[in-house]
Order: sequence, then C-alpha cells, then structure tokens
Amino acid sequence: MIAAQLRSSFRAGEVRPTAGLAPGHAQANLIAVPRDWAFEMLLYGQRNPRPCPVLDVTDPGSPFTDLAPGADLRTDLPLYRVWRDGELAEETPDATSAWRDDLVAFLIGCSFSFEAALLAAGIDVRHIALGCNVPMYRTNVACRPAGRLHGGMVVSMRPIPAGQIALAATISGRFPAVHGAPVHVGSPSDLGIASLDSPDFGDAVPLRDGELPVFWACGVTPQVAVMASGVPYAVTHSPGHMLITDVPDTRYQV
Amino acid sequence: MIAAQLRSSFRAGEVRPTAGLAPGHAQANLIAVPRDWAFEMLLYGQRNPRPCPVLDVTDPGSPFTDLAPGADLRTDLPLYRVWRDGELAEETPDATSAWRDDLVAFLIGCSFSFEAALLAAGIDVRHIALGCNVPMYRTNVACRPAGRLHGGMVVSMRPIPAGQIALAATISGRFPAVHGAPVHVGSPSDLGIASLDSPDFGDAVPLRDGELPVFWACGVTPQVAVMASGVPYAVTHSPGHMLITDVPDTRYQV
Repeated sequence: MIAAQLRSSFRAGEVRPTAGLAPGHAQANLIAVPRDWAFEMLLYGQRNPRPCPVLDVTDPGSPFTDLAPGADLRTDLPLYRVWRDGELAEETPDATSAWRDDLVAFLIGCSFSFEAALLAAGIDVRHIALGCNVPMYRTNVACRPAGRLHGGMVVSMRPIPAGQIALAATISGRFPAVHGAPVHVGSPSDLGIASLDSPDFGDAVPLRDGELPVFWACGVTPQVAVMASGVPYAVTHSPGHMLITDVPDTRYQV
Repeated sequence: MIAAQLRSSFRAGEVRPTAGLAPGHAQANLIAVPRDWAFEMLLYGQRNPRPCPVLDVTDPGSPFTDLAPGADLRTDLPLYRVWRDGELAEETPDATSAWRDDLVAFLIGCSFSFEAALLAAGIDVRHIALGCNVPMYRTNVACRPAGRLHGGMVVSMRPIPAGQIALAATISGRFPAVHGAPVHVGSPSDLGIASLDSPDFGDAVPLRDGELPVFWACGVTPQVAVMASGVPYAVTHSPGHMLITDVPDTRYQV
C-alpha cells in the first residue's frame, strides 16, 4: 500500500511534489468550494472536460472520497492553498482548520496519472528525471464559463523529442479522464506563454536539442477560475502536490 | 438539414417516437429541474455516467442548447412530460407553458445515437424495423445517490442474435457518451424485469429464435429519480421522443 504510506507521510507533515510517486496509481487535483458554488464548479468541469475532468465529488462537508477510502482530504495531500475572495490567503500542509461544513470537494484528473505509461513506452519525463515539479503555465485559452465561474486554461509542459511526440499523444490520448492527449505542441506564444523559463506554477525544466514543448490541459485550471471569478472561499491542493489515490491508472485507460 | 426539418415538424405538432429518424445525428434525452436541484442532477449524472451521460446543460431558464443551435427545447421535441412532486402531471407536445425561469435543462445521451452504426454493421434493430418505440424497463439496479436524488436504473432492450452480441457490444462500446456497451445480456429477471412483454416505457418487440435480449442503460433513468425522490417540479421528454440534435453521432465515437 505505497499510496496509503505516502498519504500517511504527508499527513505527518512531509511536503513535496507528487510527480513520479506511487507509479500505477492515479493522482488527483483538489478543489473544494462552498455548496452555493458547487453547481457552477461541477458545470465548469462538464463544460471543460479537457482541463477539468471530474473524477469524484464529495458530499457537503465530507473530506472523504471513494478514490482513496481511508484518506482524509484535509490532511493527506502534501500542500494546500486556501483562497479568500479569489486571492491566495494561505499555503499550508494541513487544511483541517480551513475545512468548512459547507465545502463540496471535487477531485479532478491529473496528468501525472499517465506518466508511468509514458515512461513504460520509453518516453523521458523531464521533471521526474530531475526530481522537481512539472512546469505549469496560464494560457490565453478561455474556458467555457459556467454561471459566475470563468477563467483561462492552465497547461502542464513536458519536453518531448520530435520523433516521440506522436507516441506521447497516442499514449496520453488513451487517458481522457486525466487530461488525455496534448492540447498544443510547439510554440508557447500561441498559448500566450511569454517564456518557458518562468512557469506560473511548478518548476522550469530545460528543453534539449531536438525536443519540442508539449502542452497538456492541467487541473490547476479551477484555481485560475477561483482567482478570475472572485470565489469567496476555496481550499485546493498546491500545484503539483496532489492526492495520491488508490485507483489504478489503468482504470482511466480506454 | 433533416434534423432541423424534423424539429420543425415536431414544433408544428407532429408526435412520434424518434428512433430511426435522422440517421447520423445524435439524439438526446431532456430533463429540466429547478435551479435548486441542478447541482444534484448534475452530480447524479457524474456519479451514474452509464445511464446519465451529460452532453450539455443550459443556463437557468434558457431553452437553448449548443447541441442544436436554433432549436427551442420547449417545443422541438415531439412529446413532453411535466412532473409535480414526483408524479406525472401532464403529457404534452408543447412545453412552453410548463417552462419556468428557474429551470436548468440537462441533455443526456441517448442510445438511438449508435443505432445507425449497428444497422451499418448488419445488426437488425427490431423497433426500427417495426416502426415502433424501443422497449424500456425499470430495473432493480440502484443508481448511486446524489444528495436528495436517488432511484433505479432504466434500460432499453434490443433483441440480438447470439452470434452478433459481441459485435453489438463492440460497436456500442465505442459510444460511451450515449450509454456505451450493454449493461446486461440475457435473463431479464436478473435485472428484476418480470416480463419483456410489458415494458414500463415504449413498446414491446418480439424476441425471435436464436436471439437474446440485450440491455443498455437508458436516459429515462432521471425520470425514475424524479419519481423516487419526489422532485417538486420537472419537465422531461416523453420516453423515446427525443431531441434530434445537429451533432453528428461520430462526435461521440471514441
């Protein structure tokens, strides 16, 4: 039970990004909003399935999910962000005191879930090789609004050799519930990204000769919606610091 | 624009089941509930994707959907049901007077959408051959509840020759957003269905020698949830009398 052990260490206070941990286990983004915003958040996911594929939704106030029975969503992720009126109020390894009885938590698919499949196919995953967080960028691609919720899409980036891009697209495309195939290959400026060296979230990674940057939709997208829409209160994971679930990644492979 | 022509004839008052009409166009179930129930209905779909795959959700009060620009959800289906406190209050070809400003409409995938693919593969679709409605049955399979919403799954049934069942499963399985592969093959009593001759919705069709009944999850399932949960108000299509969309069925093929 490597997943449970890792969650236990996060509960005990360890803080680190989760890419590369517990290979074969799906990972998930967390966004919890007040019940009054829950319909719009769920609809935001329904209308934007590439960045916001909803894997599970808790009952109001419940910190428990079928994706990881026994896990506590308030403590078992390595790092959290607490948002007030669309602004980052706090970053904390323990969200217990931030949890509220009216919070509805959404578990959103995470592209870390198909990285084991990329590695198994011989595709290097740069941030795993370097032991750092994946680089993530805000883009100029608008999501389809849902009521009061609106905002741009966030993407994660992996440098891929030109000759392996089709393979990476094919493999990740088999995992639509965890972001699926890339949304863009090549020019960052097409997405409104000024510089790959300055990711909005996570760590920069080097691009080598013969590689192109390949962009996947990212589950940090709801956090941008929280900012853009001034959501009065939200608790999320910190980018790259995910819930490690008990669900095998193959469950999301079609 | 065969889809628009059919919608126009329904708007003018024609009443008939839509199976077999506008081959190549996806069809959709309709369920509209008050905004106060919208989160639970959307969550019911998220938690029960086989019977309730959500294709689109309207803004509150809006009778318009991206699935069929120009269509009016209040008039362009052949037949509607109006529900009060979980009971059928009215069946009508025009839901204009039943529509309310607080209604949120959900368009749910319909298995009619993969019938053209079945026919193209040489699989007879009995209710199309007979020019009647598909038989639909309530089952003893409970859906996963969502807040106040609960109820059993409804299935549609098509008789399929034993030697074609694998093919029918493979073809329909490529269309997960419109119910996908069968949920059951063979014994109706396993699902709590007492007699195939008495469908709960639609028309009975004969089973021939060498055929087994094959059951698919059905988008009438939300109507059973309306009944079981005592939803105070809802407007739905009448079973088998669907929205014919402008979306090609291939859009939902994976």
